[in-house]
Amino acid sequence: MSEQYVVGVDYGTLSGRAVVVRVSDGAELASATHPYAHAVVDRELPGTGEQLPPDWALQVPSDYVDVLRTAVPAAVRDAGVDAADVVGIATDFTACTMVPTTADGTPLCELPEFADRKHAYVKLWKHHAAQPHADRINALAAERGEAWLPRYGGLISSEWEFAKGLQLLEEDPEVYAAMDHWVEAADWIVWQLCGEYVRNACTAGYKGIRQDGGYPSRDYLAALNPDFAGFVDDKLDHRIGELGERAGGLTREAAQWTGLPEGIAVAVGNVDAHVTAPAAQAIEPGQMVAIMGTSTCHVMNGDTLAEVPGMCGVVEGGITAGRYGYEAGQSGVGDIFGWFVDTSVPPAYVQAAGERGISVHQLLTELAAQQEVGEHGLVALDWHNGNRSVLVDAELSGVVLGQTLATRPEDTYRALLEATAFGTRTIIEAFEGSGVPVTELVVAGGLLKNQFLMQLYSDVCRRPLSTIDSDQGPALGSAIHAAVAAGAHPDVPAASRAMGKVLRGVYTPDDERADRYDVLFAEYRRLHDFFGRGEDQPGGGNDVLHRLRALRRDAAARRAGGAVPTATPVAPEVEAPAIEEQSDVLSV
Amino acid sequence: MSEQYVVGVDYGTLSGRAVVVRVSDGAELASATHPYAHAVVDRELPGTGEQLPPDWALQVPSDYVDVLRTAVPAAVRDAGVDAADVVGIATDFTACTMVPTTADGTPLCELPEFADRKHAYVKLWKHHAAQPHADRINALAAERGEAWLPRYGGLISSEWEFAKGLQLLEEDPEVYAAMDHWVEAADWIVWQLCGEYVRNACTAGYKGIRQDGGYPSRDYLAALNPDFAGFVDDKLDHRIGELGERAGGLTREAAQWTGLPEGIAVAVGNVDAHVTAPAAQAIEPGQMVAIMGTSTCHVMNGDTLAEVPGMCGVVEGGITAGRYGYEAGQSGVGDIFGWFVDTSVPPAYVQAAGERGISVHQLLTELAAQQEVGEHGLVALDWHNGNRSVLVDAELSGVVLGQTLATRPEDTYRALLEATAFGTRTIIEAFEGSGVPVTELVVAGGLLKNQFLMQLYSDVCRRPLSTIDSDQGPALGSAIHAAVAAGAHPDVPAASRAMGKVLRGVYTPDDERADRYDVLFAEYRRLHDFFGRGEDQPGGGNDVLHRLRALRRDAAARRAGGAVPTATPVAPEVEAPAIEEQSDVLSV
Repeated sequence: MSEQYVVGVDYGTLSGRAVVVRVSDGAELASATHPYAHAVVDRELPGTGEQLPPDWALQVPSDYVDVLRTAVPAAVRDAGVDAADVVGIATDFTACTMVPTTADGTPLCELPEFADRKHAYVKLWKHHAAQPHADRINALAAERGEAWLPRYGGLISSEWEFAKGLQLLEEDPEVYAAMDHWVEAADWIVWQLCGEYVRNACTAGYKGIRQDGGYPSRDYLAALNPDFAGFVDDKLDHRIGELGERAGGLTREAAQWTGLPEGIAVAVGNVDAHVTAPAAQAIEPGQMVAIMGTSTCHVMNGDTLAEVPGMCGVVEGGITAGRYGYEAGQSGVGDIFGWFVDTSVPPAYVQAAGERGISVHQLLTELAAQQEVGEHGLVALDWHNGNRSVLVDAELSGVVLGQTLATRPEDTYRALLEATAFGTRTIIEAFEGSGVPVTELVVAGGLLKNQFLMQLYSDVCRRPLSTIDSDQGPALGSAIHAAVAAGAHPDVPAASRAMGKVLRGVYTPDDERADRYDVLFAEYRRLHDFFGRGEDQPGGGNDVLHRLRALRRDAAARRAGGAVPTATPVAPEVEAPAIEEQSDVLSV
Repeated sequence: MSEQYVVGVDYGTLSGRAVVVRVSDGAELASATHPYAHAVVDRELPGTGEQLPPDWALQVPSDYVDVLRTAVPAAVRDAGVDAADVVGIATDFTACTMVPTTADGTPLCELPEFADRKHAYVKLWKHHAAQPHADRINALAAERGEAWLPRYGGLISSEWEFAKGLQLLEEDPEVYAAMDHWVEAADWIVWQLCGEYVRNACTAGYKGIRQDGGYPSRDYLAALNPDFAGFVDDKLDHRIGELGERAGGLTREAAQWTGLPEGIAVAVGNVDAHVTAPAAQAIEPGQMVAIMGTSTCHVMNGDTLAEVPGMCGVVEGGITAGRYGYEAGQSGVGDIFGWFVDTSVPPAYVQAAGERGISVHQLLTELAAQQEVGEHGLVALDWHNGNRSVLVDAELSGVVLGQTLATRPEDTYRALLEATAFGTRTIIEAFEGSGVPVTELVVAGGLLKNQFLMQLYSDVCRRPLSTIDSDQGPALGSAIHAAVAAGAHPDVPAASRAMGKVLRGVYTPDDERADRYDVLFAEYRRLHDFFGRGEDQPGGGNDVLHRLRALRRDAAARRAGGAVPTATPVAPEVEAPAIEEQSDVLSV
């Protein structure tokens, strides 16, 4: 029998990437990327000139199909394989990214009558305009003691299916009424490939509040808004597919787009972060995968169901069928380092990096790496983009203590690197404290490249660090699911063993450094609780970060009210964060 | 009768400046500056090649005489006045700057047998190598409940006469034994001018622990070190001169140096900060003068003797004869802004400032000034160089709270400006809380130039701001004392009214902004006490800043022990703080 191949397609925020992978050993033969023509629609609705309100982020679904038409055939061609030997295709997507469709899956924005209605478009994961709706969802759920709330660390995100759906209902009831299905893009693309609408167990659980086979009750929904009572029954509920399951066969049309054989297996949809776990051979209970980019997403299987304080969610089959999938996150990691480099590094450093042909990140890392633990005299809280786990508080902000007139940029940079490692350790300790052991830490994502950072995480977390051995973790993960859906491997664990790629124990903790980091971590934790857990806690706290946020909002409102003259001169533009493209996993 | 003139000479850290002033109205006719040939000796002892230990800072006394030989005649020549019409000369100096001399005032370093002994040289105010000696002085004084300790906010500085003297005794007993007098440079220069050794009441009180006509007891000194028992009696005690008093007449030799008439009045010595008060017409009780440069010194007369927590000192006649002179200070102000500009501002800002031909300070100030109060969402503690008043703790360090991914350089810059204003308000409130009212705030020093900063101080302190109307405040203050010593005005208050220059009420607080600053100030005070007053206080505290300092020290020691490889590559040099030369008052 000749070799078999599968195609994995990773849908990111700005582009889609197709990778051709050998089924027997996971070899990645070729890849191709296709950028979305409309990228992120956050200023003007295409063809209408309508300006979008703040916090909106839309996409155009035909851009996703273009990836199938271009990147897939290009990758197959470059791989030099016979398309006839491709036995399956699978996709992963940003999430929660939502498409409103008709009964046959046509996006409402493709209907002429709705082409000029912003609510008819895809709401991208980073559409944040449904925060007021999320606030109501959370307040009501807490008030009623809804059993599903603790499964999400006590907070439903404005990014998720219910908040975005409620916004749609209340801001454009006509589009809402015309919508037959409220579809995760992860599932919509699968529908395009095989003609079947299957809700994948991952997003249905993490983003769609599906728990123990059910959803939030009609009663609860009616209390949010009487017209929302039927949201689950009418718009959401549908056949669920486990990850790695075959959703259907490739349609004739999709076979024409992709150049792949009609009828080959199309796998149930998946999410970029979660699909990375099998790609890193890390789906056994206790193997925590940290996908580190602009932010960090932690995914880990467990044997038992536990309520871990401050996690993003726990979903049965959310990562691997038959296991409890846990997810946690740090809302700012590479973003914080990027912000620091863009806003807080003087010309001499930028010039020195340029002369050596290295990035400012590399220069600062080199300089920081020369220091002894504690030598900078600093400790920081990594909350510049809020805190996802374990405090679940978007209103927090960054703190730096200990700066003197001798503090240099590399000192603060290192303190920020350390703060994110302390944030990861805090999450690990929350899991272990809730009876969910973490036995191995496996890193994937763009920040892998920074070896000093990796060693720092190993030292701080006092455990060996494994690293994924692929630059295209999500696409490889999708390919693994394609192979399972095609029957080439019996299940995802077996396919992961055969096709996944990991380097085990690449970094091991140094006991002496780890001891010193323990001292700094104790300071971090004390400040973390003091500034993060409110003023009523035993031992006291300080809500100053919340009050500063409120003051900022009030001041901005005063300015908007015309109390402040128009700003002049304008602040110099700083370069856009270069780090953003370090990770394809932008949605998590 | 023709016009009369006086010469004021201000001895700074790097140079001396002579100003010729008209006695009748204080008009400043001309000035000249002479830089010290040896500047600050902090690396190598002149002529010996001997490397100085860390924290040492020496000077060469003949450099001071050169100022008399060059700057004084140059200023008189430029003023176009007849030297015969000059009726007096007075000086002010950095303090505490100490000269070890023989009985006739010859500096020991000028004796051939001691020219190669570092302890025979002038110890400049910023010689900080006597910290261990200061620690012992403070610990023993606290243990014995010495009555003078609260007059100094509970802490004697390593910069002062006793700490430097104890270091001299213990590190070079031979030089100590050969020393007949331990002389403030402020008094040594007067000795050179008139041949009389007179200890001025200001430094004797603030730096020499002279209180109620006495000094620390023999008993106490013996307990520090038996050989130190006679320090006061043998080396320190001498005739005291009130400020504005005539110390003597100009000697023939000094007349030759300066070109001034032999026998004219030479005033008792003075200190740069304190002498600024009469120059700003601010010597009435309750008029607080803030001399704002790299650091800020606050001086104010009071009617009564009170122990203000955290002040630098209270001295009878320390500012004006017959009144209680209070001194407080902020150890980092312009230095903090300079550090931020040098280390934390990206190339686009530096370039934009350069293109507009303005300084980065100006650019950041312009941008910061456009904001509403609270709009940056930040609060900072201004402890990057420790805290002098009211916490008296050199081991504290800076704190910034509230940074997000949207925080720009001008945001943090403004937060640092505000933090120093909050520091000043904290000092004012400490005085008022101790029964020493502050009725007017008068600003002198280089930071006067920043109008936004001045308005901010007025708003934060909720009081009108007056400003000195001279760029050479200390030298003008010296000239006022020269006029009094010459009998041209009856006393310093009268001379100050005639010759001092102030603009009253230049800035007045805006109630709306002041209300909003009150909110931020409340946050500042809460954090100030939490991080600054130790862990035993009611309501709790956090000594993390002290622990970070200790960690930093330990780490540096490990590196010095060879545990860490030699640093490579070297961090880029940042430009030296440009702000340093904004103020001649560097010693305070």
